[in-house]
Amino acid sequence: MIKVVIIGSGNVAQHLIKAFAKSAIIDVIQVFSRQKKAVTSLLDSNKITDNFNNLAEADLYIIAVSDDAIAKVSSQLPFENRLVVHTSGSVSLDALDKKNRKGSFYPLQTFSKKAEVDFKQIPIFLESKIETDFELLKSMAEVISEKVYKINSEQRKALHVSAVFVNNFVNHLYQIGNEICIENKVPFEVLKPLILETANKVMSLSPKEAQTGPAIRNDEQTIASHLDFLSDENQKNIYKTLTQSIQNNGKKL
Amino acid sequence: MIKVVIIGSGNVAQHLIKAFAKSAIIDVIQVFSRQKKAVTSLLDSNKITDNFNNLAEADLYIIAVSDDAIAKVSSQLPFENRLVVHTSGSVSLDALDKKNRKGSFYPLQTFSKKAEVDFKQIPIFLESKIETDFELLKSMAEVISEKVYKINSEQRKALHVSAVFVNNFVNHLYQIGNEICIENKVPFEVLKPLILETANKVMSLSPKEAQTGPAIRNDEQTIASHLDFLSDENQKNIYKTLTQSIQNNGKKL
Repeated sequence: MIKVVIIGSGNVAQHLIKAFAKSAIIDVIQVFSRQKKAVTSLLDSNKITDNFNNLAEADLYIIAVSDDAIAKVSSQLPFENRLVVHTSGSVSLDALDKKNRKGSFYPLQTFSKKAEVDFKQIPIFLESKIETDFELLKSMAEVISEKVYKINSEQRKALHVSAVFVNNFVNHLYQIGNEICIENKVPFEVLKPLILETANKVMSLSPKEAQTGPAIRNDEQTIASHLDFLSDENQKNIYKTLTQSIQNNGKKL
Repeated sequence: MIKVVIIGSGNVAQHLIKAFAKSAIIDVIQVFSRQKKAVTSLLDSNKITDNFNNLAEADLYIIAVSDDAIAKVSSQLPFENRLVVHTSGSVSLDALDKKNRKGSFYPLQTFSKKAEVDFKQIPIFLESKIETDFELLKSMAEVISEKVYKINSEQRKALHVSAVFVNNFVNHLYQIGNEICIENKVPFEVLKPLILETANKVMSLSPKEAQTGPAIRNDEQTIASHLDFLSDENQKNIYKTLTQSIQNNGKKL
């Protein structure tokens, strides 16, 4: 059994605890959590600690805390030369204290507490300084996911920035669509098939091939009428910025 | 049988011809197309005409042409006082020539020739000047879709603008994600589960509830590191614009 200690009790920590619990080769022997309540439903309470000095000996320590807490947590670990990884998309390995062996174990997904997650489909990106550490991370990742990749810190950052565009920013555009619907007494409900179809389309077509609409058609009349329709300055600004980007991008071809 | 003539042979026209073909109460008696080839696989060639003077008598004429051609096509129709509708999201009923009875039959979806479409799930929005015309449009729309709505021109425009945000602009953000991946030798493939999950999330949560990421968390350190990472000025500009919009929007609560 690979013995794992998870430090943290947020969304990522909880989903990892659940995913590892199904495995026959991974044993989550302990969870460090300042808020015991967050994880009591997931494992025996004697496996939960809020004291760094009580951390058990394990093959791997996974720091699943907020980005800005990673450095501090890693410096507080009361041991040396063990394998310590974080789960962040944007934090460099350098943030981890050098007294331990470093790595990252980054599941690329938007975790929310409510939604159940099929971990098998979630890509996991691994990085480590030492080859044997990588092998351990890989064997663990492959237990819970079918999609395991080795990347460096720069690529991980690229992925994280891309994810901000295709997840955070996309969701914000959904919200603007929702606001326009509310203002005009149209149910947001009716946009849902379009939202799904838009996402499904790029499963088989490239986004460039899938692009439609007034911007790519250079339909200036419709663009002008849409800008005229929008009363919110922020919405107008986003409309202009993205329309121009689509048009300039088309010219690049 | 409700006799229908479809004018046009683009994506929307073709999908409508296919959807109506499955119905026992709707008969597409004729299609007007300047490019006969586009529709020969969909109906008998003696039902295809490229001459306005040969248009058959029907209960309904559906103009499914590009937005800027609607006015001209409707003015060329060699008859009066028949029901003539267009399929555009952004064109007002006023664009239709007043010699005929006006309406709109707007299926809200992104049609591409390649992808098969399940019309049952596509919302159709109807508008007409006269109640009896509305009843005819409604009975037809309900044959091919489970989601039929009555709206006015202003609401239709709101829907169309919303659709630009949640479809055209969202797809462009997918493309930027793709570009960042390519530049950094990471397969776009790995973003696909995230893209689907992002869309699926707003099927049950509101976009506001579903919002995650550095902008909504006001994680200025990550935002700065992302902006530093992006070298393309246009990508930087979109990143800043959308981050600011998410942050301002959060404050509105």
